[in-house]
Amino acid sequence: MTRFFVTPEELTGDVITLTGENAQHAKVLRLKAGEQVLACDGESRECLCHVDMISNHETVLSVLERRNSVTEAEVRVSVYMAFPKADKLEHVIQKATELGAYEIVTFPSSRCVSRPDDKSLKKKLERWQKIAASAAEQSGRGRIPQVIALGSYAEALKRAGESDLGILFYENEHATTLRMALESGTYRSISILSGPEGGLEEREVIQARDAGLRICTLGSRILRCETAPLCGLSAIMYAAGEF
Amino acid sequence: MTRFFVTPEELTGDVITLTGENAQHAKVLRLKAGEQVLACDGESRECLCHVDMISNHETVLSVLERRNSVTEAEVRVSVYMAFPKADKLEHVIQKATELGAYEIVTFPSSRCVSRPDDKSLKKKLERWQKIAASAAEQSGRGRIPQVIALGSYAEALKRAGESDLGILFYENEHATTLRMALESGTYRSISILSGPEGGLEEREVIQARDAGLRICTLGSRILRCETAPLCGLSAIMYAAGEF
Repeated sequence: MTRFFVTPEELTGDVITLTGENAQHAKVLRLKAGEQVLACDGESRECLCHVDMISNHETVLSVLERRNSVTEAEVRVSVYMAFPKADKLEHVIQKATELGAYEIVTFPSSRCVSRPDDKSLKKKLERWQKIAASAAEQSGRGRIPQVIALGSYAEALKRAGESDLGILFYENEHATTLRMALESGTYRSISILSGPEGGLEEREVIQARDAGLRICTLGSRILRCETAPLCGLSAIMYAAGEF
Repeated sequence: MTRFFVTPEELTGDVITLTGENAQHAKVLRLKAGEQVLACDGESRECLCHVDMISNHETVLSVLERRNSVTEAEVRVSVYMAFPKADKLEHVIQKATELGAYEIVTFPSSRCVSRPDDKSLKKKLERWQKIAASAAEQSGRGRIPQVIALGSYAEALKRAGESDLGILFYENEHATTLRMALESGTYRSISILSGPEGGLEEREVIQARDAGLRICTLGSRILRCETAPLCGLSAIMYAAGEF
């Protein structure tokens, strides 16, 4: 079913009017009065709606049923990725959103080649958030993951350490598997952290361990920086019983 | 450790001479006499080698130790993907190779938008095989997955059905999870099949079931055609105890 993201305020009424991009999108889809669609607030609440009226500039929906989103994972996985080059972060934002990530957090680490300056960061964050919104819509999610950029590696460790379980994927770790970390308890929130193209420095890995993160392997094959977080996220969703 | 793929014949001798692209690559890496490298036959056998001599056009290695590759998964997962548009197949070939796929098989299905003709297919297969080889090298694999293009959907089903376990991922399946399929036995070879951008037709799904494939969900979120096989593959590697 087609879904439209509206603000939490707009979702409270019995009638919802789609305007702007949403109205344009409804037109492109050739939506017709009488059809049913979903309106979501992007925060896991959604309404099943009837299309009452559709014009060039607005589409009027009436709410049939209110419910919590049924497509959100119970486990909240935050994906922490050190700034990678070019379009790799955009790729990870799109895919991690499809795969059900709760949020995507990016941060600098010492081997990062690309590090957006403060000026360009605001524009980039807007663009990244749009990618997450579009992927959330396409994959039928009830929640748009927030994309967050942190100022330092230390800040990323501190924030990731606040989850029930914090994990760092490291190619030189061979003893502790992701499974060992996941099976060591029951976790409602999990943060997974991975490095940039050149990997993390050993001292950064020690710093992460000191911050309470578990250092885990993703197997004996070396994964690219954009592959590791998506592999880890897929495995966690599987382990959590999502599929 | 740097690895070079040579032919199975070249790997049999006590001295291995790298030529052509391998010699160029050695030069780019500024390899020096005295260093150690791996020579692999791309079929899971490898030799730890000593660099004896390096010149512009060839690099001479002497074999120190012969062994089976330690980076190959025990479970053989064949990734069957209906021809997708443009560069999506190339993306899947690269990522599936990193993630440890045994082979990548592509085939037509009724909603495929892109279907290479016989003329262009030969060139494309060469290109796809190169992508697999390069990803195998980068990820430290001992085996280069073969990329295979089949002529029909029926042929894909027949071939996938010959694995110990054949699975089709379908977005309209809600009852059977991947976990149920994996936990129904012990499998040495698994084929996972997924559709193109527009998905598979219902009659194609029935056809797959009739061919003995298990129809499974990958969760309540709709994954793009290039995301589904990689998500499934990651989960299977996790379930098989790879990480």
